[in-house]
Amino acid sequence: MAKNTNIRISLPAVCFVWQIAMIILFGVFIRYDEESDTHWIEHRRKKNISTNLENDFYYRYPSFQDVHVMIFVGFGFLMTFLKRYSFGGVGFNFLIAAFGIQWALLMQGWFHHLDENDWKIKIGVENLINADFCVASCLIAYGACLGKVSPVQLMVLTLFGVTLFAVEEYIILELLHAKDAGGSMVIHTFGAYYGLTISWVLYRPLLSQSRHLQGSVYHSDVFAMIGTLFLWMYWPSFNSAIADHGDGQHRAVINTYLALASSVLTTFAISSISQNNGKLDMVHIQNATLAGGVAMGTASEFMITPYGSLIVGFCSGIVSTFGYLFLTPFMEKTLKIQDTCGIHNLHAMPGVIGGIVGAITAASASESVYGQEGLINTFDFKDAVANRTVNIQGGYQAAGLFVAIAFGLVGGALVGGILKLPIWGDPADANCFDDDVYWEVLPETMSVAMQLSKMIIWRSADSSEHTYSKTILSKLELSEPQVMCIRPP
Amino acid sequence: MAKNTNIRISLPAVCFVWQIAMIILFGVFIRYDEESDTHWIEHRRKKNISTNLENDFYYRYPSFQDVHVMIFVGFGFLMTFLKRYSFGGVGFNFLIAAFGIQWALLMQGWFHHLDENDWKIKIGVENLINADFCVASCLIAYGACLGKVSPVQLMVLTLFGVTLFAVEEYIILELLHAKDAGGSMVIHTFGAYYGLTISWVLYRPLLSQSRHLQGSVYHSDVFAMIGTLFLWMYWPSFNSAIADHGDGQHRAVINTYLALASSVLTTFAISSISQNNGKLDMVHIQNATLAGGVAMGTASEFMITPYGSLIVGFCSGIVSTFGYLFLTPFMEKTLKIQDTCGIHNLHAMPGVIGGIVGAITAASASESVYGQEGLINTFDFKDAVANRTVNIQGGYQAAGLFVAIAFGLVGGALVGGILKLPIWGDPADANCFDDDVYWEVLPETMSVAMQLSKMIIWRSADSSEHTYSKTILSKLELSEPQVMCIRPP
Amino acid sequence: MAKNTNIRISLPAVCFVWQIAMIILFGVFIRYDEESDTHWIEHRRKKNISTNLENDFYYRYPSFQDVHVMIFVGFGFLMTFLKRYSFGGVGFNFLIAAFGIQWALLMQGWFHHLDENDWKIKIGVENLINADFCVASCLIAYGACLGKVSPVQLMVLTLFGVTLFAVEEYIILELLHAKDAGGSMVIHTFGAYYGLTISWVLYRPLLSQSRHLQGSVYHSDVFAMIGTLFLWMYWPSFNSAIADHGDGQHRAVINTYLALASSVLTTFAISSISQNNGKLDMVHIQNATLAGGVAMGTASEFMITPYGSLIVGFCSGIVSTFGYLFLTPFMEKTLKIQDTCGIHNLHAMPGVIGGIVGAITAASASESVYGQEGLINTFDFKDAVANRTVNIQGGYQAAGLFVAIAFGLVGGALVGGILKLPIWGDPADANCFDDDVYWEVLPETMSVAMQLSKMIIWRSADSSEHTYSKTILSKLELSEPQVMCIRPP
Repeated sequence: MAKNTNIRISLPAVCFVWQIAMIILFGVFIRYDEESDTHWIEHRRKKNISTNLENDFYYRYPSFQDVHVMIFVGFGFLMTFLKRYSFGGVGFNFLIAAFGIQWALLMQGWFHHLDENDWKIKIGVENLINADFCVASCLIAYGACLGKVSPVQLMVLTLFGVTLFAVEEYIILELLHAKDAGGSMVIHTFGAYYGLTISWVLYRPLLSQSRHLQGSVYHSDVFAMIGTLFLWMYWPSFNSAIADHGDGQHRAVINTYLALASSVLTTFAISSISQNNGKLDMVHIQNATLAGGVAMGTASEFMITPYGSLIVGFCSGIVSTFGYLFLTPFMEKTLKIQDTCGIHNLHAMPGVIGGIVGAITAASASESVYGQEGLINTFDFKDAVANRTVNIQGGYQAAGLFVAIAFGLVGGALVGGILKLPIWGDPADANCFDDDVYWEVLPETMSVAMQLSKMIIWRSADSSEHTYSKTILSKLELSEPQVMCIRPP
Repeated sequence: MAKNTNIRISLPAVCFVWQIAMIILFGVFIRYDEESDTHWIEHRRKKNISTNLENDFYYRYPSFQDVHVMIFVGFGFLMTFLKRYSFGGVGFNFLIAAFGIQWALLMQGWFHHLDENDWKIKIGVENLINADFCVASCLIAYGACLGKVSPVQLMVLTLFGVTLFAVEEYIILELLHAKDAGGSMVIHTFGAYYGLTISWVLYRPLLSQSRHLQGSVYHSDVFAMIGTLFLWMYWPSFNSAIADHGDGQHRAVINTYLALASSVLTTFAISSISQNNGKLDMVHIQNATLAGGVAMGTASEFMITPYGSLIVGFCSGIVSTFGYLFLTPFMEKTLKIQDTCGIHNLHAMPGVIGGIVGAITAASASESVYGQEGLINTFDFKDAVANRTVNIQGGYQAAGLFVAIAFGLVGGALVGGILKLPIWGDPADANCFDDDVYWEVLPETMSVAMQLSKMIIWRSADSSEHTYSKTILSKLELSEPQVMCIRPP
Repeated sequence: MAKNTNIRISLPAVCFVWQIAMIILFGVFIRYDEESDTHWIEHRRKKNISTNLENDFYYRYPSFQDVHVMIFVGFGFLMTFLKRYSFGGVGFNFLIAAFGIQWALLMQGWFHHLDENDWKIKIGVENLINADFCVASCLIAYGACLGKVSPVQLMVLTLFGVTLFAVEEYIILELLHAKDAGGSMVIHTFGAYYGLTISWVLYRPLLSQSRHLQGSVYHSDVFAMIGTLFLWMYWPSFNSAIADHGDGQHRAVINTYLALASSVLTTFAISSISQNNGKLDMVHIQNATLAGGVAMGTASEFMITPYGSLIVGFCSGIVSTFGYLFLTPFMEKTLKIQDTCGIHNLHAMPGVIGGIVGAITAASASESVYGQEGLINTFDFKDAVANRTVNIQGGYQAAGLFVAIAFGLVGGALVGGILKLPIWGDPADANCFDDDVYWEVLPETMSVAMQLSKMIIWRSADSSEHTYSKTILSKLELSEPQVMCIRPP
């Protein structure tokens, strides 16, 4: 079945209409908060704030920029690993993140920051961080669909993803009063199950027709390492960006730094042990090394202790690498879930681990470890939840995990259904993972080599070295008919 | 006409002599300021500063490092997009920026920071940021000349560019008292017209002889995306780096973040709608997505409102992409301006938009929006300009824009004339965009493919598949004579 | 002699056992310090600290993240320059750094931060920076061995390297009370001589068998520039990360910024002047441009003056480039030291220069320049060393340099001996610089070109164009026997 992948009307329409909608909604709802408004100087005097440094900007801006790099370079370059889908990986990531952060400022604003006096949302640097966080869940979901969807579908995925995110985040953080500074549950678990369910709904039985493009080449693997490393290095900023000022941010950094280091070693170990000759697999190194950061998301602020962080990283690195080895092939064959980037291994499982670790760590918190004030500050046991005990908090943390999973599954099924409509310009099964569908790609080195190989094979096909040619053919990933048809009359 | 591109004498001579001059001038003029001097502790006591954090270092250092990344990785990698000029793009960017920041510390110091007591320039972190800013204008100018000039010419371009910059900056910021925190006028408009005029003076009528190298290959486009993204992500730091402490920096970040997001969507929209099949063009995505940051340079500190920022990004993304589609070809054919990177679309037009937006926003500022103190702080209505009204300020902003354009045009014409002298080792028209002229480039994959193709064509040229060979030839960008000459006797 | 490079048992064993050991030792020894512990709020009250900003986190976190990027992306990508060892360069760098930072937290903790009351090490952000610093010395040592050792050997190199580092650092900084904020001596000199001595012990007489892989291709050189630039840009953070709060950090940034800029110009100059045609060599640009940062390590905090910094960069850029031109070949031929990345030129010589500059600058410090308090603060002339003069300090600085060299030489000899044991799975001389030994590398473009070339040569070998084939052969770096063996029977 031929598919129409011409998005000349749909993509510009979606971009223009939605961007204009953003402008109107921002005009109606979004204003500067008191720390980014020129009235800050009066606010300072009124609140008796002695220095400009107490502006939240100086607490959070360095972390914000690190998170921003993770969203655009981290996620973007991690998805350049496919040999002919690097433009789509980094480019569509750019597009949907740029849209998503605007929509997230609105959605999260309506749920969390709506000023009841004037019905405005007042934004500052923390809102920007939260918008980046929100978008991360959609970029995770993109990872499952990489190479199989059109940019218009991705915009729809993001529109609904951000909406669902804002609701589940409100339920988990506000209603359940669960803690999730680095978003193991809210971002990773939700985003991963959202993307996996969409991928399941959009199952492509004949995807093997694109198999020759569903892999990396040497340099695309090096590009992907740029993404891996910027995610890995800045993850301490991710998990601490919206943590409590002072010891909260400080501790979140230490915990995440250690968990990440630990998961690198177990990833290398499992990757090596899984091959007959002990050779390492770049897919594992690019992804499972990050599992420690995901799994430390919820508990990063807690007194999990440095060695506790190492244990979390240790386990999540193992689980994630085993996922790539066994679960991804199993899911594709048996469950009909085609997960291009293996987000189940990098985000879903470590995210669930993170949620569980968070629940256990919260339930076992004590005044002897945290100090009386420390316990109250860390878990915000104030106002409506002033009398909550750590055991009950642990229960609510666990409940939050289920909410995240439920939103991912149900939301993914709904959005997957919408994306299945034959109007979005998605590629045929034989044209997946190919930038040529949505990008102007010039003929170049690789195509030249292909052309050359065809010529040679055509010249040699009439003689006895036919067997040798076949080896070449397979290396070039050309099927025989393709070659035969260029034989001269 | 053969050209001598041997720079073995001229490049080392320029580097050595100018670096030694820098050392001497720094020895005479440059000292630490009171915040980077060991007397800081006494200065603190005298000024009753309670904490080390009040050292400007802690306000500005994170932004400085982000700006530094934009200058060297952002601009550098953005210019790696050419298939065989990546070394020159990132390497010469490195060279001239490293020289330019030193010269800028002196030039800007003489104009803005000369201590009248001891005739010394006292430098701190803000001077480093301003030096990076100054150099940015020369790197923009380099974008128009990319691939067509020698590194010696670039050093000359930078020497004069920095000098001109310091003067126009002094006129605009000090004499006119215009505001331009992110440099829409001072950096982008000036730099772009400076580079375009130089490119016009250095017009190469036979540049089409290098056309086979004036494009990208797949991986060079991915490299360029590294530059694009680091520019895009850190642009909020660029526009806020020297903004007022507190709400000024905070607001500049929010405005720039939003304008950039908005221009991404309109860039994708126009890029897609401009092709018959709706395919996206990497050149647009790499460049026009940044237009929002350029256009928000002047007004970033102002109370332009979040939706105002979105509108600025919306328009500048459209204008910039249309520029790549229509203006660049028009300028090359009709105006004889060869603009390799399309800086007219990315810097000149968005820079002018930024200047106009700044003038309008300033002229429409009011005490009701800014607050009395806020208005004074934002526009620095103190001392000599204590009685200036916002309307007059708007006029001075507009005047600043004209000064920037004038300096670009006149300065570019003068420097272009100097660079036209036949002593600088620039490449012949047929050797532009080729790293082989100034770099030791080893034979490698691509050359191997070339060699192979020649062999094959030579073997097949005696038979009937000559027509097919021609197709190959065109893909390989080899003209027929090149092939024929390797035919065996 | 065939070598067994199967590391399927040894690498996982080392990773698992050492990571479990880390967990146990962290469990016994490592705790949060008072600034990252939930008791921070009580600590603040007790110490009368007015704001969360006084938490050291806010002084050091931006620098920490920059240093972290240098360790993983800077060093990692700098080592991707080899045409077929990019995975090993960036991947093994990742592995050993992730292990090393954990071991460094313990080793440095035992020597510097062991709380005598409870025998615990209390960690905060400064410990994380120091751990990254410590690991840098091992990554430098890796540079000399790049492509010639197995990952198991690298883990051993790191285990002992970190151990030796902690001891020499203790001697230099604590016992000798030398200052070395950016680690010219402690990190660079030690790390370089450690690596060079190991490389000397592991001398491979037949390494030329791998010569065809001991070079770069076009795109691998661009990848390496990512490493170069992130090292270059963030070096001011490296040299200031653990400097004194306030003017100390501020001054270290300015000095390093200037020294780096200066060494770029002299590197370009020497690189160009060294070739007949004035062409630049990417190896020089990738490496020697960084020499100014190395050489400014020790004196970065001192009042060396801005022009002093320029002079240091000027000289070290020259020395480093000359090293690449003359010393590296000499060392390989005469001294039997095979230094893949040229760390002798980038780290050893500039490190020694840095140590000497530090000693001279310290010895010539005066109260008239530093101020009375400034002098005491800068050199920490308190407690046991309250009466030390600057001349004596200069002597101790020089002594520190010798300690660093001695530890590098002796430690390298010992560890080299251990690594010479035939149990570590290192590659044969003919298989060095080849990712295929330790990584799953898929057949791709380059191999295709190779395969094609073999076919063509085989077809042409029977005829008169044999001479021409030889040219092709040499370009492809294939020796004739390799080709002949695929000739058909």
